Amino acid sequence: MASRQLSRAEALACSDCMHACHVMLYSDTNAQLFGKTPIRHIILMQMRFDGLLGFPGGLVKPTEETLEAGLSREFLEEMGVDLPVSVEDHVESTHVPASSTSSSTSHLITHFYVKKVDEKQIMEVEKAAASAAVDHGQEVLGLVRVPIYTMKDGGGLAAFLSHSFIGNARFQLVNSLLRFNLVTPEELHKAHTHSLRICSNTAKDLKAALALTE
Amino acid sequence: MASRQLSRAEALACSDCMHACHVMLYSDTNAQLFGKTPIRHIILMQMRFDGLLGFPGGLVKPTEETLEAGLSREFLEEMGVDLPVSVEDHVESTHVPASSTSSSTSHLITHFYVKKVDEKQIMEVEKAAASAAVDHGQEVLGLVRVPIYTMKDGGGLAAFLSHSFIGNARFQLVNSLLRFNLVTPEELHKAHTHSLRICSNTAKDLKAALALTE
Repeated sequence: MASRQLSRAEALACSDCMHACHVMLYSDTNAQLFGKTPIRHIILMQMRFDGLLGFPGGLVKPTEETLEAGLSREFLEEMGVDLPVSVEDHVESTHVPASSTSSSTSHLITHFYVKKVDEKQIMEVEKAAASAAVDHGQEVLGLVRVPIYTMKDGGGLAAFLSHSFIGNARFQLVNSLLRFNLVTPEELHKAHTHSLRICSNTAKDLKAALALTE
Repeated sequence: MASRQLSRAEALACSDCMHACHVMLYSDTNAQLFGKTPIRHIILMQMRFDGLLGFPGGLVKPTEETLEAGLSREFLEEMGVDLPVSVEDHVESTHVPASSTSSSTSHLITHFYVKKVDEKQIMEVEKAAASAAVDHGQEVLGLVRVPIYTMKDGGGLAAFLSHSFIGNARFQLVNSLLRFNLVTPEELHKAHTHSLRICSNTAKDLKAALALTE
């Protein structure tokens, strides 16, 4: 990652930068998958209009509103729920080089927030996202929970990490999993290793599909 | 694809095979993304418990119930909606070699159904999946719409196809897009080409992430 970490204040000092704010909402849970694998935490991400996975949020103009007010506004549009986000929920600001994003913007700073809520609130968000959110079917194609467990056959976190993410969203997810002790570095290492294998199988399948149409 | 196509009758004749039934639910829509890109169709897929994308459905025992009754039962559990599926909705049965599935089963036949409904019904399913479905948060981590459009910057179908899918689900999706004229072969070819590029970027990112933890 050639991305550079900044403090929130440093980041805001860049007046010709574009600022994007996103939030990872998560909760604890006692639920077990198939009555045996502890699910441990529920983490929300979304399928975006561009077919990539990402966190709720969007562009904010610091000259017009605070980063946190802008993020809450985006969250309401995308998730249909009023979620107050505060400076205390901020975890990192990152300068993303133009080449590693899909946008053509040369100066993008992504501000990332993590907010812990309870399981009931997560479920309220899921319901509202599919019914009350104005962006449903537009900017947002659906909400998904991130499996952080690893099943006997290797399924779970590894498969999830092998998907395609917008900008530095995968990095933000992985960073937060470690920062908040939601997975251990060992679990993550194993998942990444398996993830790479899944990814190379996907490439093989896509090449085969492409060959069929040539 | 080394998978072999079978008729429904041929497939059912295999008594020691495991049978899995899945359905692609879709509708037309006049909605436009950001008021300019025609969305054309809404297609539903889901994030599964194992972190992979797939269609609603599951294993059915033909000795105990018809394929279609089993599929409707699975759909109700996963989506929270009673959807009658009939033999007329069947589009293909495929013998999937053991090596190309993540399960250890040597004889798996996947039966695929496509059912067209109206936009209102799609939205009912999305609401029910997040509230009434018993499998929500268990077998199903969330519902997503498949973007079949291609945006100016290449986003949309290509990104979606670069994700990781269970078994032959990507193949079933692509096949159905062509069979029901939801995308043209040219659109699909372009999407696959771009998809492969996205996939190789993902591999690069994963390798970098892995290197950080070694």
